[in-house]
Amino acid sequence: MKNLQEKASDLTRDFSSLPAFEKLKKLAEHPFDLSLPGNLTPERMKQYWSESAGIKLLYGTERITDNVMKALSELARESGAVEKMHRMQNGEICNCIKGYPCENRAVLHTATRDFFENQNTCLPAREAAEMAATELEKLSSFLLDNDITQKFTDMVLIGIGGSDLGPYAMFLGLEHLKKPGRNLFFINNVDPDNAASVMEQIDLAHTLVVVVSKSGTTTETETNAEYVRKKFLEAGLKPEKHFVSVTGEGSPMDNLSSSFESFYIWDWIGGRYSSTSMVGGVLLAFAFGFDVFKEFLRGANAMDKTALKENPEENLPLLGALLEIWNRNFLHYPTLAIIPYSHALRRFSAHIQQLSMESNGKHINKSGNPVNFPTGEIIWGEPGTNAQHSFYQLIHQGTDIVPLEFIGFKESQYDEDILFEGTTSQEKLLSNLFAQAIGLATGMQNSNPNKEFSGNRPSHILLAKQLTPYTLGALLAYYEHKVAFQGFIWDINSFDQEGVQLGKVLANKIIDRFANKRGIKSSEEFPLADVLIKHSENF
Amino acid sequence: MKNLQEKASDLTRDFSSLPAFEKLKKLAEHPFDLSLPGNLTPERMKQYWSESAGIKLLYGTERITDNVMKALSELARESGAVEKMHRMQNGEICNCIKGYPCENRAVLHTATRDFFENQNTCLPAREAAEMAATELEKLSSFLLDNDITQKFTDMVLIGIGGSDLGPYAMFLGLEHLKKPGRNLFFINNVDPDNAASVMEQIDLAHTLVVVVSKSGTTTETETNAEYVRKKFLEAGLKPEKHFVSVTGEGSPMDNLSSSFESFYIWDWIGGRYSSTSMVGGVLLAFAFGFDVFKEFLRGANAMDKTALKENPEENLPLLGALLEIWNRNFLHYPTLAIIPYSHALRRFSAHIQQLSMESNGKHINKSGNPVNFPTGEIIWGEPGTNAQHSFYQLIHQGTDIVPLEFIGFKESQYDEDILFEGTTSQEKLLSNLFAQAIGLATGMQNSNPNKEFSGNRPSHILLAKQLTPYTLGALLAYYEHKVAFQGFIWDINSFDQEGVQLGKVLANKIIDRFANKRGIKSSEEFPLADVLIKHSENF
Repeated sequence: MKNLQEKASDLTRDFSSLPAFEKLKKLAEHPFDLSLPGNLTPERMKQYWSESAGIKLLYGTERITDNVMKALSELARESGAVEKMHRMQNGEICNCIKGYPCENRAVLHTATRDFFENQNTCLPAREAAEMAATELEKLSSFLLDNDITQKFTDMVLIGIGGSDLGPYAMFLGLEHLKKPGRNLFFINNVDPDNAASVMEQIDLAHTLVVVVSKSGTTTETETNAEYVRKKFLEAGLKPEKHFVSVTGEGSPMDNLSSSFESFYIWDWIGGRYSSTSMVGGVLLAFAFGFDVFKEFLRGANAMDKTALKENPEENLPLLGALLEIWNRNFLHYPTLAIIPYSHALRRFSAHIQQLSMESNGKHINKSGNPVNFPTGEIIWGEPGTNAQHSFYQLIHQGTDIVPLEFIGFKESQYDEDILFEGTTSQEKLLSNLFAQAIGLATGMQNSNPNKEFSGNRPSHILLAKQLTPYTLGALLAYYEHKVAFQGFIWDINSFDQEGVQLGKVLANKIIDRFANKRGIKSSEEFPLADVLIKHSENF
Repeated sequence: MKNLQEKASDLTRDFSSLPAFEKLKKLAEHPFDLSLPGNLTPERMKQYWSESAGIKLLYGTERITDNVMKALSELARESGAVEKMHRMQNGEICNCIKGYPCENRAVLHTATRDFFENQNTCLPAREAAEMAATELEKLSSFLLDNDITQKFTDMVLIGIGGSDLGPYAMFLGLEHLKKPGRNLFFINNVDPDNAASVMEQIDLAHTLVVVVSKSGTTTETETNAEYVRKKFLEAGLKPEKHFVSVTGEGSPMDNLSSSFESFYIWDWIGGRYSSTSMVGGVLLAFAFGFDVFKEFLRGANAMDKTALKENPEENLPLLGALLEIWNRNFLHYPTLAIIPYSHALRRFSAHIQQLSMESNGKHINKSGNPVNFPTGEIIWGEPGTNAQHSFYQLIHQGTDIVPLEFIGFKESQYDEDILFEGTTSQEKLLSNLFAQAIGLATGMQNSNPNKEFSGNRPSHILLAKQLTPYTLGALLAYYEHKVAFQGFIWDINSFDQEGVQLGKVLANKIIDRFANKRGIKSSEEFPLADVLIKHSENF
């Protein structure tokens, strides 16, 4: 650890002025062509890989060479990427923009799982981990409470964005471990049909409702909580005996007259980084048991430690970030498709989409100056093999190149498979993943232009033995840190989201127009919105 | 109707050589700036809209002017877009590439709903509609059969890609109409965990299994059907009393010893265009009743008729295609996000992703020559308002521009809502949609660069009264024809998918390597794959 007294701002280095930037730009003029005969060799696939916390990253199918990897390493060093990761995990203020009013917060989601070996000893990180440990203890007691376990079979999570996407994706990721008789439901959208359809499926008397909002003032969540509360009252049940909150201490939702327990989160946990806090914890521990949740945290923590290593070859998230930056800033590919060959990870890409795009979809650097290079890429994706039967036509033969991040596992989760025509389904699944990485790279000649594959389309593979709680935690943290490293290298603030404010302000104005029609509120004039409202009324 | 004897190939016109192409290129040098004060006016929002089959398209928030719209109309005319749509719906061979071996098929998914007014009178279309009517009759009798209705409460659909994404998205779209006591499940991925998790949830004795594959040889579907068949046998049940097939007549799956009924599809229905055929029909009619399915078809048929109109202002799918081409080929935006403000449409974008990207992700034109312009864009999206709490940060402030296609409804589906703080949830939902379209266009100045919104980000809105079966059918057909029109204008073949073949060939080779290890099959050498297999074994 270098001198921590040095201010975070001293690490501000304009991305496009780094010496390695020019080097990489030059290298990108003649990038490695994966499709040239003899270029994609078994030796290459043996050479380019790395492993941490049980996850391998195989990247021989990226358009890189030793020189590119060397320059990317320099880029990491020159941008102070690992140093910034140390500072983040140590609890320095890194959610900030120099010279402008900003959130000015530490970023300590790593503290929500720092309960294992080699704990961080810096004071802010230590204090944060202690606060998180207190909540974890509270959760453990809560789940051991006989009243709770005997009364409740169903749980409804009400939350949106970071309070929903991560918990939901993680829940699906481990659904095979669900405790018998427990049922989980999710209300996220303010669309009333979301809540209505969930209400049709649950048994209120045995339902625990978890309302998740850091601020306690998220419109969608407040509205849906109110909706569900009313249903309990109509059924002659007391909502305050069924509701618990996950929220900031002292927020409007931290109120024991409306919920019988509050679990806390703090301003040093961003919503999109909150899956390992109580935001994910209450749900996952209820569904799978406390030990499974703890194991999930242990996996995330292992990747946190990996993220502190100086050498990109030993630092999986940094390696992932560098490959992404190569594709994004030097080869100019604007999107990344994340394709898990895993049914359990079918909503994982939607979570990473939020994590990455809300973090890195930024137009200014940490000094408040407009960036002169592309930042956060568009993240999208669906599970394989399904995606092969959906959009892979474009991936193979479209006019645009889409880099891919595959995720695969040697073993399935359920102990169920079928040996059909000589192989198991799991082997077929993995074979398809491998085939795609190879085929996209090599392409194939054909005298019929419609059957011609140009190849030279880059991808890499994240590979693990099995999707266990530990591996899922490690995989989640891999992405959290990959995203943070991209932001560190670009020198942008990956931890705020000012870009969502304008929509909120305008939506509230239009909501007021509706309330005004009902004579409930006065409202500002908004002629543009009125035309749209009128369009919606004339059918 | 013009002279149909003219060959389809005579309509081949290179997109980038059309006179309107140059005009549009010139207009795109100084496109309309939505963010300039006074540019986005209520009058503009009143001017730019169109309506068909109960769906409005509001496009004042696109970067267009009257001149652009005029040039886009010329582009449509010069490319023969509507003429090609006539030919498609009339049953001419339009799935073909001139001078090369190709599928050489008609494209007649419109015939699967041509049962209402103004039926197509051309012979191939008529014959196709009669074949489709026979299957529809068969389905009607099937569902009225007492044995069926009394015995089966649950249905499992086994299919992948076009045999899954459309039916699943349409099912969710109308789930509020589900018949009481009926439960629907989906097995698509070859990941054995998909089938295993479904098997845990169903009551085999009362389950009808629908296996969907046009060719009857889709590996994933065959494997999963075999897996499920084995489960029935293990439970002492006869699979052939529970299985029905949706497949091509005479395919390996059209076999009454393994399934007690076969519903047919034909080579003139592409998988991604098959939701209104028996591929969607068996599932949707079982879940919602025959009449609901028929109403869904009626909506699709209404949009089919709209698609034949010459004037883009009256032809909603053509208008949508032209706006997309403006954004894609002239303003150079590589992706389109489809954002339904609707919980019921939460998987709709995934279906349109397949529909569009598999259709138009092509690199050659219909004469077999490489195109010199970008074709099919990357389609992605999640429902709003959820997306606002996910990736809208990048949409508003990212360095790349993402055009958006919003979908909204005045009324919800369930008759349930809550008046909270003066407005209903449905009003809040719609307010958010309108706010986004306005805010993305106008942007907002701020002295804090982190709170600055550059604006000038284009979008349009599809608006309808309510998501009914009719509207869902119309909306589906809007996209089917929008995609086809893009292909017609680009002069590419939107109806084949040769780009998925290479992956299949390589996957089978790797599957053989696994079988070979087990001593079951001999297999070709494949050193590249062997390295990857080895990586997966060493954990």
